[in-house]
Amino acid sequence: MSNQLQLEALILAMYDKDIIKFGLFTLKSGKESYVYVDLRTTISFPSIYKQVCDILSDYIKDNQLKFDLLLGIPYSALTFASSIGYKDNIPMLLKRKEAKAYGTKKLLEGEYKQGDTCLLIEDVVTTGGSSIESLQVLQEHGIKVTDLVCLVDRQSTAKANLQASNCNLHSMITLTQILEVLRKHGKINDAQYEQAIKVIEQ
Amino acid sequence: MSNQLQLEALILAMYDKDIIKFGLFTLKSGKESYVYVDLRTTISFPSIYKQVCDILSDYIKDNQLKFDLLLGIPYSALTFASSIGYKDNIPMLLKRKEAKAYGTKKLLEGEYKQGDTCLLIEDVVTTGGSSIESLQVLQEHGIKVTDLVCLVDRQSTAKANLQASNCNLHSMITLTQILEVLRKHGKINDAQYEQAIKVIEQ
Repeated sequence: MSNQLQLEALILAMYDKDIIKFGLFTLKSGKESYVYVDLRTTISFPSIYKQVCDILSDYIKDNQLKFDLLLGIPYSALTFASSIGYKDNIPMLLKRKEAKAYGTKKLLEGEYKQGDTCLLIEDVVTTGGSSIESLQVLQEHGIKVTDLVCLVDRQSTAKANLQASNCNLHSMITLTQILEVLRKHGKINDAQYEQAIKVIEQ
Repeated sequence: MSNQLQLEALILAMYDKDIIKFGLFTLKSGKESYVYVDLRTTISFPSIYKQVCDILSDYIKDNQLKFDLLLGIPYSALTFASSIGYKDNIPMLLKRKEAKAYGTKKLLEGEYKQGDTCLLIEDVVTTGGSSIESLQVLQEHGIKVTDLVCLVDRQSTAKANLQASNCNLHSMITLTQILEVLRKHGKINDAQYEQAIKVIEQ
């Protein structure tokens, strides 16, 4: 299991680099949130990038997830999966983001057999929409998807939506956990914590 | 410097997995070629994938290339760069392939300062067209590009075209080298070698 202290250190490092921010943000859905998470700049900070990849890799091994292939959803999770595949010698698949613009190229790259199981890697899940889209593309190619490992679960509907597609969501960090760590280390006060938690629970 | 035996082993492994093929192929340009190289399935073979990343990483270190940031051109070289960045603790940038389709998202992801130097990684170069497109995007953002490291140089106009943009091309493998290795190991005969070499030199 991922060590709690390791996750706490990662949350603080990400807060320090503005990968995690506290404030009032409006999500794409129109919903408000006090926690902003954007893992796209993770690639700029080698120590944070390494921690993210190692935490995901350790989780996969410690929980003995069973799969034949690894696929990271572009772009952030594609970089994570590439590093995990390199480190742990795992065959990968790659799903392009822009299939329609490149009609002659395959949407799915890499070798697979019918009935293979693919583990999905995602950076942040909210409703799980883009994860389920990838899952469906794999299923259309005869590939099974039973598990998705993500770094951050925003505790919206992703878990239920993935479950409805027979896919287990494994998240390393939740918004609640982020708020707890920020409060514990004096980055936010009790009132800010309570206000932010209330929005998550809505 | 990359060990010649290591490169020879990689060429043979790629030939064995159909990443490199010998036959008569028509390139996008309409030109004919006897050597087909498609690194997109490299992700499916962990041992080959690791060799590719390690050869690129070793070359960068052995030749003491000077740069602040690493950028792999999507998709194959993006996976290679992600693994090299992970392994060697190098900050990375990411250039999306499909900027036009995602108007609200940035074409270039990651942190950089004006005047930073970025090393480009590419899988295969022919004319260098897509490499130069990436180089220009970086320059428009105030980032310098002085070197590009690729796995395979098809020995067309990439070297000259990149040089005209003040960028040095460093290639690990050329088509000539591939043909020599295939002949040495009896994968092709002398007549096939001569015929294929003639087309490269045209």
